[in-house]
Amino acid sequence: MKAAVFQGPGRITWKDVPDPGVADPGDAVVRVDVVTICGTDLHILKGDVPEVTPGRVLGHEAVGTVVETGRDVRTVRPGDRVLVSCISSCGRCRFCREGRYGQCRGGGGWVLGHLVDGTQAEYVRVPFADLSVHPLPNTVDSLDAVLLADIFPTAYEVGVLNGRVQPADTVVVVGAGPIGLAAITTARFYSPGRIIAVDLDESRLAAARKLGADATVTAAEGPEQLVQDLTDGLGADVVMEAVGVPATFELCTRMVRPGGRVANIGVHGKPAELHLEDLWIKDVTITTGLVDTTSTPMLLRMMAAGRLPAAELITHRFELGQMEEAYDVFGRAADTGAVKVALGDPQHTVVQVADPPASG
Amino acid sequence: MKAAVFQGPGRITWKDVPDPGVADPGDAVVRVDVVTICGTDLHILKGDVPEVTPGRVLGHEAVGTVVETGRDVRTVRPGDRVLVSCISSCGRCRFCREGRYGQCRGGGGWVLGHLVDGTQAEYVRVPFADLSVHPLPNTVDSLDAVLLADIFPTAYEVGVLNGRVQPADTVVVVGAGPIGLAAITTARFYSPGRIIAVDLDESRLAAARKLGADATVTAAEGPEQLVQDLTDGLGADVVMEAVGVPATFELCTRMVRPGGRVANIGVHGKPAELHLEDLWIKDVTITTGLVDTTSTPMLLRMMAAGRLPAAELITHRFELGQMEEAYDVFGRAADTGAVKVALGDPQHTVVQVADPPASG
Amino acid sequence: MKAAVFQGPGRITWKDVPDPGVADPGDAVVRVDVVTICGTDLHILKGDVPEVTPGRVLGHEAVGTVVETGRDVRTVRPGDRVLVSCISSCGRCRFCREGRYGQCRGGGGWVLGHLVDGTQAEYVRVPFADLSVHPLPNTVDSLDAVLLADIFPTAYEVGVLNGRVQPADTVVVVGAGPIGLAAITTARFYSPGRIIAVDLDESRLAAARKLGADATVTAAEGPEQLVQDLTDGLGADVVMEAVGVPATFELCTRMVRPGGRVANIGVHGKPAELHLEDLWIKDVTITTGLVDTTSTPMLLRMMAAGRLPAAELITHRFELGQMEEAYDVFGRAADTGAVKVALGDPQHTVVQVADPPASG
Amino acid sequence: MKAAVFQGPGRITWKDVPDPGVADPGDAVVRVDVVTICGTDLHILKGDVPEVTPGRVLGHEAVGTVVETGRDVRTVRPGDRVLVSCISSCGRCRFCREGRYGQCRGGGGWVLGHLVDGTQAEYVRVPFADLSVHPLPNTVDSLDAVLLADIFPTAYEVGVLNGRVQPADTVVVVGAGPIGLAAITTARFYSPGRIIAVDLDESRLAAARKLGADATVTAAEGPEQLVQDLTDGLGADVVMEAVGVPATFELCTRMVRPGGRVANIGVHGKPAELHLEDLWIKDVTITTGLVDTTSTPMLLRMMAAGRLPAAELITHRFELGQMEEAYDVFGRAADTGAVKVALGDPQHTVVQVADPPASG
Repeated sequence: MKAAVFQGPGRITWKDVPDPGVADPGDAVVRVDVVTICGTDLHILKGDVPEVTPGRVLGHEAVGTVVETGRDVRTVRPGDRVLVSCISSCGRCRFCREGRYGQCRGGGGWVLGHLVDGTQAEYVRVPFADLSVHPLPNTVDSLDAVLLADIFPTAYEVGVLNGRVQPADTVVVVGAGPIGLAAITTARFYSPGRIIAVDLDESRLAAARKLGADATVTAAEGPEQLVQDLTDGLGADVVMEAVGVPATFELCTRMVRPGGRVANIGVHGKPAELHLEDLWIKDVTITTGLVDTTSTPMLLRMMAAGRLPAAELITHRFELGQMEEAYDVFGRAADTGAVKVALGDPQHTVVQVADPPASG
Repeated sequence: MKAAVFQGPGRITWKDVPDPGVADPGDAVVRVDVVTICGTDLHILKGDVPEVTPGRVLGHEAVGTVVETGRDVRTVRPGDRVLVSCISSCGRCRFCREGRYGQCRGGGGWVLGHLVDGTQAEYVRVPFADLSVHPLPNTVDSLDAVLLADIFPTAYEVGVLNGRVQPADTVVVVGAGPIGLAAITTARFYSPGRIIAVDLDESRLAAARKLGADATVTAAEGPEQLVQDLTDGLGADVVMEAVGVPATFELCTRMVRPGGRVANIGVHGKPAELHLEDLWIKDVTITTGLVDTTSTPMLLRMMAAGRLPAAELITHRFELGQMEEAYDVFGRAADTGAVKVALGDPQHTVVQVADPPASG
Repeated sequence: MKAAVFQGPGRITWKDVPDPGVADPGDAVVRVDVVTICGTDLHILKGDVPEVTPGRVLGHEAVGTVVETGRDVRTVRPGDRVLVSCISSCGRCRFCREGRYGQCRGGGGWVLGHLVDGTQAEYVRVPFADLSVHPLPNTVDSLDAVLLADIFPTAYEVGVLNGRVQPADTVVVVGAGPIGLAAITTARFYSPGRIIAVDLDESRLAAARKLGADATVTAAEGPEQLVQDLTDGLGADVVMEAVGVPATFELCTRMVRPGGRVANIGVHGKPAELHLEDLWIKDVTITTGLVDTTSTPMLLRMMAAGRLPAAELITHRFELGQMEEAYDVFGRAADTGAVKVALGDPQHTVVQVADPPASG
Repeated sequence: MKAAVFQGPGRITWKDVPDPGVADPGDAVVRVDVVTICGTDLHILKGDVPEVTPGRVLGHEAVGTVVETGRDVRTVRPGDRVLVSCISSCGRCRFCREGRYGQCRGGGGWVLGHLVDGTQAEYVRVPFADLSVHPLPNTVDSLDAVLLADIFPTAYEVGVLNGRVQPADTVVVVGAGPIGLAAITTARFYSPGRIIAVDLDESRLAAARKLGADATVTAAEGPEQLVQDLTDGLGADVVMEAVGVPATFELCTRMVRPGGRVANIGVHGKPAELHLEDLWIKDVTITTGLVDTTSTPMLLRMMAAGRLPAAELITHRFELGQMEEAYDVFGRAADTGAVKVALGDPQHTVVQVADPPASG
């Protein structure tokens, strides 16, 4: 089959690799119908994630069709259209039992496109399939569903739930990329009084307004002052960091009110300065986290009920074979305006169960 | 009357000052029977708290006897033995209504010995008396109760409750001064599996063991390794910072397990480095806070039930007139072994209601 | 002044009574601009509430203008337009400190129009004014605000919060009277997947649909079967009882899923049968409660943000002097279609501070 | 092998039955070292549980040694000493993913000794072994551990956690049988101020005092009055029902304070009367539940730390072959004073891996 293979820093190639097969009784092999590229994939491409070695097939987001299952898989079978979650769960370790799949100690967690071959390919082997893929109801479109593989549960669990958004809250989201936009969308589940989006880029702020931000502000325009003005000098109830650099994290801690919450969603490469000389007295809660995807069934129910039009984040569509071009467009988001790029054919849902890829 | 008057950095004097009186209808004037000195008072003495101006009577912890009340005070009356809480609550602002008395916007919060004259005196005026003093049942000793003015609710609310200590948890308390020792005592309300105390000082660690720490370790002996060893490499469920310097805070963030909580109790004067490059993925919660004293009624119930022998923390006793000597002993804790010093006469509970200080 | 005076079972008269005045330093006297009639008033009228004795002025819901305040009142002053809450809070007892104002032990709780004279009058004396009236921002209309006096905080706190409504939940509201309709409106703050309203009356179900119910069903049409069908036989996540009779409560306990919540909001006069032989194994939570009105500030923020168009529940408007007619229309709701009736002039907001009613 | 076979109402026989074997890849076969009899077994024996048909091997509590595992079992292997939990968890259904194993929709829940053959036998087949048995550390004694199969997690989850016991609370436990005694023991994890035990039987109340009850009272002595007296007329914070008859449930609802919690643990066969005419206004929470056993790992950590001396509940010991005699002693608890009876040899921990029972 063809797959997007990491060739070392700066190089990704769409090339022939062996078909995946069931390697463990809990595996499913899924034919990829729709796949997206994540900001994390760009980090890998830059060489920032040393665990990813050359030869690895990237990708941890997909919707596809099951073509083969190991003998222990009980919840899906060939022919099922499924969401492939970015997190795999062994279901047996302490953390999985507590619903912290992202911290799985039993071989799961974030492994796809990281420690094992991923979804940017024609087929993908998914370990621990029973807890790591989700059958899709007919009423859910694949282009919507693929955004539940990673960014929506990440934004919701690590941003909205950790930040404990409540009705009437003032919520600030710093960073209006895909995660920040998904945070705005899912924060609205709790009817905040006001959502303020902060970004460097006017077009991203326009997208934020379209998805429900009540106010937007560029970094240059003074987000701190705006938050002060809108909250009678108190600060925001919840501030979410969706960028991943020290300056934005520190900005978040300056905008939060006494008793408020800072929910970090960004992936960071460097330490930030924590101004405990100001914060020690402020009753502030700061959270970090990797997504667990335990909210995925709920998000799917919201989607099936027509309340989560996630595909609005997709700005560019490609054929699966245009992988390298898609990486280029997504990698130059400032120029191209890309938010999420999707590859593949979502209508391609009839599977040839009689002709799976060879196992092994 | 006599009082401990801040004279500017480095100078505290026990001297004559005018008697306090009811200045607002919600005030109570309390004759001080027992008073303690807090680490915060030493910070003030050093000049670290610029809001405290020369001439201020210090102190925010006391047990005493009400001698006069404003016309709006409904819950105490002259003759009542009361705990004077370190936090005053207006009871009317948004934060007080939400139980965040420490963040009071209506003239309360930490004001005693800070923005108004405090408890290290023969008499003290307590604003918002209905919510800021607590009548003491006969079964509670004044020497026990005085420790509920600040350190026990602080350790319990900002350390134990913010840290969400649960049965069987591994809890690390960094800093075995008065606050750290109170954190150990109140963490035990939730039956943690193991409490580990960390300090520089062997005698404080001995006190920690006496109060229920299961293991103790000096900074030099390698607390990180001990925590790793005792938790199969996972880290602690809850880590409390009870020192207030960057190095100990950073130590705390290295000892917490994925999914664990770091509860900062220490008063900080400088920023710390927050290693988001490690922490972003670890599902960690970090909290800060000023005490609200909303737990004081519960702590008093525990004390009345004989389950909170707080006075064990008092290492030195003085007459009220020995204030300067008490400051000296408490200020040289490393030499003197002082944990808490108490001044005054707890038996002195018969009040001359007929002869209150002149109002003023 | 004129007021609606309870004359014993079945008789209410709009008649002259002495003007109220400040009786306690914490009181405010409020000129009533808009007032509503509550289902509880009808219970009183029937004689079901024996604590209410003949001669009592009824009513516990109003928006008005402060004309006089006791010397201890700090948060409002003459001329302020305020919401008069159905619950008064002493702010000092154990329950008030814990935010359970409805259980106040210090002279508050539900007292207006119950134990002291109420709001269905030209003027009303409000005890504990600082915690019992809420100044209204200019952007909030009096006709919207008056619904926050009782039914919206009741529905939200006792129904939605006790029922812990979550995104994607299936929520059933039994009873589509004013409280049930307010429960539907405020349940939507949490983005349930589906709200099902149950009532005997088609016109109330039409109102429920207008306010956001996704499905409606009359008792005769089989609500149990509908819930089964819509939830794959599982049952509802949250069921709220907003009627107050045994049959509807028992219906609620049959419609809840394993692990679900039944939140009773109805005022009951008789015991119900609790089928523990079915329920013991089902992990069900059943809650009861009187409103505390601690959510009122949040609801006012929602209203100020334009997110709570409460006045939609008002079906009939009257002059204050038409009190007896308004009672008649509201009491024959099945015939008149009344949901909420409002009396008074919401535009009448300029107060003659120079001419308050005589005190005393 | 020999096993305790239900022969229809009133008859249990220790007789030869075929050896169990692995029937599903997720099964484990466990040699029973220690087994206990549960009150539920007596209900089955009476014919109260119609799902249990003649020929069924009873029992859902055991400690034993794994002798064979299906090919998909990953967390235990032959030779491991394990706790067999009363609840099996498929790990895949909605309820298992949410930690509600007791409500498992995938073939688990309470199945042992109910829908499949149970533990009162020389060997038992345990379905879904990875989530349904717990390897035992060497420091935990089998006689202690066997009480974690059912009664301790039941008392803790359904009583203490559902009842939200907090420090300083007044807790009433109605019924001092095995479950009630385990509730007293585990309620103490949260340092309640006072635990009051209620029972008909003085010897059970003596056991309650030994395990930490601060006060005990027989039904005849007036528990309601005692609770009133000890709580200044307020009522208890938490009341747990551990009997299972209407009268005791109704007693619980009369003893709870406004804002308090009633946690039902008892297994009921008849409806109770719920006095909503009193309770609707009292802010009461009533919970029911079947154990999930999600707390078992925590309870095992407490036991390994020496903080849960569970075996104190065992009053009688028997050989495995004395099953019928043990049933007789346990069934006549009022005469024999039996609390828990244990059968088998806890020292018998060396397993003949080379000689498992024949599969199938």
